[in-house]
Amino acid sequence: MNAPADLAPQAPLALICGGGSLPLAVADSVAARGRPVVLFPLHGAANPRDYATRPHHWLYLGQFGKFARIARAAGCRDLVFIGSLVRPSLGQIRFDIHALLALPGILRAFRGGDDHLLSNIGKMFEQRGFRLCGAHEVAPDILAPAGVLTRAEPREGERGDIALGFEYLRATGPFDVGQAVVVGGRHVLAVEAAEGTDQMLARVAELRTNGRLQAPPGSGVLVKAPKSGQDRRFDLPTIGPQTVEGIVRAGLAGIAVVAGATVIAEPEQLIEAADRAGIFVVGVPAAKAR
Amino acid sequence: MNAPADLAPQAPLALICGGGSLPLAVADSVAARGRPVVLFPLHGAANPRDYATRPHHWLYLGQFGKFARIARAAGCRDLVFIGSLVRPSLGQIRFDIHALLALPGILRAFRGGDDHLLSNIGKMFEQRGFRLCGAHEVAPDILAPAGVLTRAEPREGERGDIALGFEYLRATGPFDVGQAVVVGGRHVLAVEAAEGTDQMLARVAELRTNGRLQAPPGSGVLVKAPKSGQDRRFDLPTIGPQTVEGIVRAGLAGIAVVAGATVIAEPEQLIEAADRAGIFVVGVPAAKAR
Repeated sequence: MNAPADLAPQAPLALICGGGSLPLAVADSVAARGRPVVLFPLHGAANPRDYATRPHHWLYLGQFGKFARIARAAGCRDLVFIGSLVRPSLGQIRFDIHALLALPGILRAFRGGDDHLLSNIGKMFEQRGFRLCGAHEVAPDILAPAGVLTRAEPREGERGDIALGFEYLRATGPFDVGQAVVVGGRHVLAVEAAEGTDQMLARVAELRTNGRLQAPPGSGVLVKAPKSGQDRRFDLPTIGPQTVEGIVRAGLAGIAVVAGATVIAEPEQLIEAADRAGIFVVGVPAAKAR
Repeated sequence: MNAPADLAPQAPLALICGGGSLPLAVADSVAARGRPVVLFPLHGAANPRDYATRPHHWLYLGQFGKFARIARAAGCRDLVFIGSLVRPSLGQIRFDIHALLALPGILRAFRGGDDHLLSNIGKMFEQRGFRLCGAHEVAPDILAPAGVLTRAEPREGERGDIALGFEYLRATGPFDVGQAVVVGGRHVLAVEAAEGTDQMLARVAELRTNGRLQAPPGSGVLVKAPKSGQDRRFDLPTIGPQTVEGIVRAGLAGIAVVAGATVIAEPEQLIEAADRAGIFVVGVPAAKAR
């Protein structure tokens, strides 16, 4: 019996892998579901050691042709693009002929915001017959569930800070900026833009050290949400064990994310680190966070 | 002939002085208009050397009674509160009996945002018969005028960045957060919250150094605006020569502020420094910035 070609749910999945441990977590989750995975680590982003024991095909950014050839030969139609990607230096890009043909689109994309860039890249894959999926579609267990995940829970005041944080992120969502704020004592203390969450948390730690923060140590919350226009196939807010380390250094009480719309990298290690530090992690249902 | 008591425009002005050079600039501007000024530098904020050659009365934060006694004896009814005020340590506060009576109001005030705090302090002065004025009312020449103040002018792309910056600040105004953003290449690159403008600019300089910024050096704009609910008698956005230094280190092209709603500290030095560095400074009419 032939399954309709546009369903093909168990055809191999092509996974284009940026940096960090998340691509491997997704690969393991997909494989555990019985679906084969073809790994495409990206030069300059993925760590070669992580891929040493797994079959893989290195790509430079821009090697659309090489990717398409290998992925098609392996029978892949669905692809997922996951992992961190610092803006690449020119040495890490190889424009093959397919990319050169797409260059006007890429340049247009770079002029918009991050989301714009990613959506345009998505379109380029789709014009070549691939279907771009979100990591959460192929590996739903990587997403934060609703509810308190840790022994510690947000107290009354922190629930107010969490609500204020989501309200702020809702107001700034249309601007395609950061996805995170730190709120303490009903004040927005730090807003993430180009620097990223880890550096924002380091700033809060510094503001505490130099006495510019009102909120007492052990209070205040990191609040993360997807941007309103965010293309979830590319870029969901992510927390991991290193986020907990940043929270501890910043003297905050916990982390609030949107349930079902936030990736937790290494969830066991994250919860263990949070419980050790007395930090709470809560997944807020989307209806309450939006 | 007796002037009506509630006008008394040339009665001496009481100036409560925080840190920085702005209080003295306001004092000089008011005095140049022929109005006597009584200076009240604040312990822990004002620099004693700045006041050595001028008659003055030191105050600790919380000394409402001492202030009221001296100000009334000097015939002051109008008061202006100006200069930087890092959140005070307990050692810099002296609660006299008047302040103790007002303590419930102060504590209420501390629970709200900064604006809330300041408005409540304003009410406390007014309940004691003083009229709280904005520095811009008594010294209008300290405000940024409309138009380009420098030899350099914003280019087309920077005008777009300026518009985006004001749009972002309009959206976040209700949150009583920072008053400034850095925008480059139609991206919001940094958002000011508790850290203040100078530290935000230092962050942008760092993002350039570590290659996380898209915008080429010599592009991007610092955009400052008053918060929407801001009580202008206390806290107007301020730029000065040190802002230009921060702009240069951050590799930005210029500064955009709201004309008539932004204080320029040491305007001559600021414009000289900006012209030397090829930086633009533009006052955008409020109708266009809002």
